[in-house]
Amino acid sequence: MYRISIKSKRITLVIATLILVLLTLTNSAYATSIEENAASITSLETTLTFVWLILSGAIVFLMHAGFSLVEAGLTRSKNTANILMKNFMTISLGVLVYWAVGWAIMYGTDAAGLVGTSQFFLSGADNSLWNSWWFQMVFAATAATIVSGAVAERMEFKAYLIYAILMVALIYPVYGHWVWSGSELALLTGADSFIVNAIGTSLHDFAGSSVVHAVGGYAALAAVIILGPRIGKFRDGEPVAIPGHNLAYAFLGTLILAFGWIGFNGGSTLDATDAYMNLVIVNTFIAAAAGAVSAMLVTWVKTGKPDPSLTANGLLAGLVAITAPCGSVENWAALIIGTIGGIIVYAGVMFNENVLKVDDPVGAISVHGYSGSWGLLSVGIFSVGLGNGILEDAVYAASVPGLIYGGVSQFLIQLVGVIVNIIWAFGASFFIFKIIDVIIGTRVSEEDEITGLDTVEHGIEAYPEHFTTESE
Amino acid sequence: MYRISIKSKRITLVIATLILVLLTLTNSAYATSIEENAASITSLETTLTFVWLILSGAIVFLMHAGFSLVEAGLTRSKNTANILMKNFMTISLGVLVYWAVGWAIMYGTDAAGLVGTSQFFLSGADNSLWNSWWFQMVFAATAATIVSGAVAERMEFKAYLIYAILMVALIYPVYGHWVWSGSELALLTGADSFIVNAIGTSLHDFAGSSVVHAVGGYAALAAVIILGPRIGKFRDGEPVAIPGHNLAYAFLGTLILAFGWIGFNGGSTLDATDAYMNLVIVNTFIAAAAGAVSAMLVTWVKTGKPDPSLTANGLLAGLVAITAPCGSVENWAALIIGTIGGIIVYAGVMFNENVLKVDDPVGAISVHGYSGSWGLLSVGIFSVGLGNGILEDAVYAASVPGLIYGGVSQFLIQLVGVIVNIIWAFGASFFIFKIIDVIIGTRVSEEDEITGLDTVEHGIEAYPEHFTTESE
Amino acid sequence: MYRISIKSKRITLVIATLILVLLTLTNSAYATSIEENAASITSLETTLTFVWLILSGAIVFLMHAGFSLVEAGLTRSKNTANILMKNFMTISLGVLVYWAVGWAIMYGTDAAGLVGTSQFFLSGADNSLWNSWWFQMVFAATAATIVSGAVAERMEFKAYLIYAILMVALIYPVYGHWVWSGSELALLTGADSFIVNAIGTSLHDFAGSSVVHAVGGYAALAAVIILGPRIGKFRDGEPVAIPGHNLAYAFLGTLILAFGWIGFNGGSTLDATDAYMNLVIVNTFIAAAAGAVSAMLVTWVKTGKPDPSLTANGLLAGLVAITAPCGSVENWAALIIGTIGGIIVYAGVMFNENVLKVDDPVGAISVHGYSGSWGLLSVGIFSVGLGNGILEDAVYAASVPGLIYGGVSQFLIQLVGVIVNIIWAFGASFFIFKIIDVIIGTRVSEEDEITGLDTVEHGIEAYPEHFTTESE
Repeated sequence: MYRISIKSKRITLVIATLILVLLTLTNSAYATSIEENAASITSLETTLTFVWLILSGAIVFLMHAGFSLVEAGLTRSKNTANILMKNFMTISLGVLVYWAVGWAIMYGTDAAGLVGTSQFFLSGADNSLWNSWWFQMVFAATAATIVSGAVAERMEFKAYLIYAILMVALIYPVYGHWVWSGSELALLTGADSFIVNAIGTSLHDFAGSSVVHAVGGYAALAAVIILGPRIGKFRDGEPVAIPGHNLAYAFLGTLILAFGWIGFNGGSTLDATDAYMNLVIVNTFIAAAAGAVSAMLVTWVKTGKPDPSLTANGLLAGLVAITAPCGSVENWAALIIGTIGGIIVYAGVMFNENVLKVDDPVGAISVHGYSGSWGLLSVGIFSVGLGNGILEDAVYAASVPGLIYGGVSQFLIQLVGVIVNIIWAFGASFFIFKIIDVIIGTRVSEEDEITGLDTVEHGIEAYPEHFTTESE
Repeated sequence: MYRISIKSKRITLVIATLILVLLTLTNSAYATSIEENAASITSLETTLTFVWLILSGAIVFLMHAGFSLVEAGLTRSKNTANILMKNFMTISLGVLVYWAVGWAIMYGTDAAGLVGTSQFFLSGADNSLWNSWWFQMVFAATAATIVSGAVAERMEFKAYLIYAILMVALIYPVYGHWVWSGSELALLTGADSFIVNAIGTSLHDFAGSSVVHAVGGYAALAAVIILGPRIGKFRDGEPVAIPGHNLAYAFLGTLILAFGWIGFNGGSTLDATDAYMNLVIVNTFIAAAAGAVSAMLVTWVKTGKPDPSLTANGLLAGLVAITAPCGSVENWAALIIGTIGGIIVYAGVMFNENVLKVDDPVGAISVHGYSGSWGLLSVGIFSVGLGNGILEDAVYAASVPGLIYGGVSQFLIQLVGVIVNIIWAFGASFFIFKIIDVIIGTRVSEEDEITGLDTVEHGIEAYPEHFTTESE
Repeated sequence: MYRISIKSKRITLVIATLILVLLTLTNSAYATSIEENAASITSLETTLTFVWLILSGAIVFLMHAGFSLVEAGLTRSKNTANILMKNFMTISLGVLVYWAVGWAIMYGTDAAGLVGTSQFFLSGADNSLWNSWWFQMVFAATAATIVSGAVAERMEFKAYLIYAILMVALIYPVYGHWVWSGSELALLTGADSFIVNAIGTSLHDFAGSSVVHAVGGYAALAAVIILGPRIGKFRDGEPVAIPGHNLAYAFLGTLILAFGWIGFNGGSTLDATDAYMNLVIVNTFIAAAAGAVSAMLVTWVKTGKPDPSLTANGLLAGLVAITAPCGSVENWAALIIGTIGGIIVYAGVMFNENVLKVDDPVGAISVHGYSGSWGLLSVGIFSVGLGNGILEDAVYAASVPGLIYGGVSQFLIQLVGVIVNIIWAFGASFFIFKIIDVIIGTRVSEEDEITGLDTVEHGIEAYPEHFTTESE
């Protein structure tokens, strides 16, 4: 008996051991497999985000072709090579400057909530940072290129290049640091910023109504004030229309820009797996369409005919306006935001020409500046607030409901953002532009302006055969 | 002994319990992990589909730039601003109309297999529906924009806008409902449709040879019949060539359209994880190339020289034709389908000008109408049928083999589809166009037509410097 | 007691059996679930790669619009329709020829390391091969289209088409087979190739500095030597500038090409899940920007003014040069590689015009040939080598460090590659071009050249209204 019961115990232990070994082996195999699967999934999520941001960035990159075409189309053919070169060198220098300096100022280690101070030349970059840099870089050159349109037909090439470099190295990334750096102290968004603490909410500028567009727009305003209007733009103080030389370029450029906005706003989810990027796209195009329709109707009512270039600018204004709120508002709000954007474009152009008496050949100040401010403010009016209906899972939406839903703090911080944005973009640009003006001058001579910048600055004509044809 | 054996039993039970607890704990952890992994995978599949459809839709959106350029390039410079504006407002109004009405008519709750009746203004939309709407919306405006080319240089701007709105709100989505709504009763595809029941197979129009292109093409035919030809198009009943003003625009536009077709046909798999999207792309480009080559050869043989604009249209005709069958046929069939598309373009233009005596400045009726019908029919000829060789896993391929493989029912339903498509698109457009014509008129005055629509309708010129140059 | 202990044994066995059954059941369920998850993950990885390559290929396809615009812009308007048609038919014929023959020669079963011999007409293709073909096809037509620019304004249309067909069917894929086929014997990369064995390292040409660009560039050199310069290009042996007719096309085309390079280099990771595609993109744009800046500065210093078309070509030269090394070098190396590319463009144009006395209207030989060779060589200088810092996980980077890090073998094989590449591309093209020249002739008559190819070859003008305007 004893032996048997001993055997029984042994058998029990042997069986138990066998089961445990079996359990351990299969379970550890499963644990490994499950972990491997989980790791593969995480890797796939990362890769999908890379693909999304590379392709979104590609689409945004093409916007430089769009800006080139809009600006060339809305100016005269004697300055076409020059405006094309300015746009082309803005993105070319932009790549190098944002690699060497801009990224570091914007996303480097924070100093006092005001400026980044590390990662110059992308030192220490890894795969993930290269991805982020690519998507941020295509944005950076955009702010500078907005200015090129406003200063067209009269600004010196060399002075413009210096200005563009400083725009991408300093003006753009400093304000960007305040909004997008993620630093605790970041002036307008950091949890420890005194402004954010005072108001109780952080600024929301999803894809850059202020960071990209209004910075470019108010920089342009500073530039054209210092530069003065083109010869012939004002007669006895009254503005005179100087039509651009090719409307097909302007429309092609506008459609390429709208295409680019799919990457601009869509990609700004910054994560392919973000659940609400579809809302972003839908709101973006509703606002764009509304801007085009309202601008067309306004010009139709005011002048008796629907004006093509203001209609195209209306679409762009709708896009600029919806850039901040596109992930935070309902479709009907996007419709209103875009509609008002289209109206602002017309009103802004009238205001610039008749009140400020400044000359902006392509309407850049109105489209990117005024409509950008409107877009930033509109977040504080129409934001639904997180967890408040349509956007449960959204990470990047404005957290507080807007005025229309009874919220106040989001509106207040947006209003502060608009003011800070204008002060910085206008002020810093005015300062830098003035210094360049004093040191090397920013404006070509009267004679050169009349001749045209293509011949004077580049020794060529964009369309040499037109003249050949004439002389035959 | 007793004690020992009791102990033995206890030990057995304790060990068994321990093993069970261990088993339960690790297993429930694994069950959770496995389910988490599975959920992450499902989420990734959804997100990849979102990314695929957002980017495919982006590429399709750019087709509006392609249409603008082709139509501007193939018409005269005195109407350039006008044709650009018509295209621009088609997509702008298209976004708003398809958001407010079109989607609801096409994909809302079915009424009698004829029309959708819910989701106006995308009410109740969620993330997934926003994604679907985006991809469907870029298609919707295409059908309308096809018409703009055919009615170019003589149709009133306001009348065109009204027509474009009704096209996107009604004509396009009603036929679309019959084919793509997925309703049980959907006239040409629903399992409970009397037509489908009678023939035994449902219509297959993968990406819209009929839904998008032929609807646009036959709507254009109705429009140009009511509108009449441009002044000077026919002399003593014989057609006179009125060359377009810029062939570079036409070719750039054509290449942008071909680029767009990658999203148009590729994205129409509607699911990034669909196994046969690669076949769709390959067939699409084989047919496109074949269309270009055959159109070039036909014009070479017929006129002694390879004609550029007909060659470009040949490529488009190949693309239009392959749009329905691209996911259902072998490569060699795509070659034949495209080749015939290229021939149809030439034959169709000859037929329109010499037999019907209608004036279609850009060849839209031939490219989108006739070649669209051919494409729809070709499914019934060349479809390999599901499970029949190349397409085991394909969800969206035509299910029945075509005539060439001995199948008949697919050919019959495609033939019925061609007829229903023509009747609806031509009939509804004729009716609507006639009403607009009677109420507000559709054609500009003879004087305005000779002056050019840019000056008359918009008070500007697309290229003001050409005239300046002349007068100097 | 005995009974009890027997019972105890039984209980032990019953419990053990129950545990084992439970274990087996749950484990087999988990095993299935884990395997299902793993299969779904693999499927997702495959699909993400498909999406990546379809969209990358789409972006590369659009480069044909870029080439069309650059070449049309940099030549005279009397040859615009002709150059557009040549580019258009290159991609159209390219699709068909690479489907029927080119792919088979490049990727079919290897014969002696020299040429592929199977899969004509993609026979036996499956889903994965269709995907690969699509991405490879858009590359194939590029090499041919490079030549179209160099031979512009004087080469017969028919002769060009025959040449383009042979380029896509033979010249391009044979060299491609030596580098990209993956065959053991592949002349420049196979493990069993006598060249690779002799040097100890295989050639690295990531995305085709030599395979695509230099093949096109040296083929162009052969062509222009046989063809001779345009009438009026040289007066008393000195080169005369013949300005292109539209700089806006040239810049738009250049920006579209830069956009295309995102797919060209990015997609050449050939796998969406490859970890280092972000480095590829960043290096690509740093080199592009550096090329533009250096070319601008060189022309500024040399001529006193920054030259627009050479600056645009500088960007392209930077892109061509970085195409081989983009996945193997650090950012600063990309900067140097691009900078030198920009200098090479200027030096190459001077060399061609003043030493070789050949006429290349668009600078294709310099941009794609000389800068392509430089790019291939630069891998041997700047490659960091696998596992050597920045690129641990990269599969496609050059494996051996470059000269700068003390490696020699990579430099040697790259040098051999440059030489073999030039000999094949120049030699095979010269031979084929000469045969075409002898049999049907390659050059239009003097009279036709002066009249312009648009009227002579196609019976039309690209801009008919310019002349209408004149005669009014």
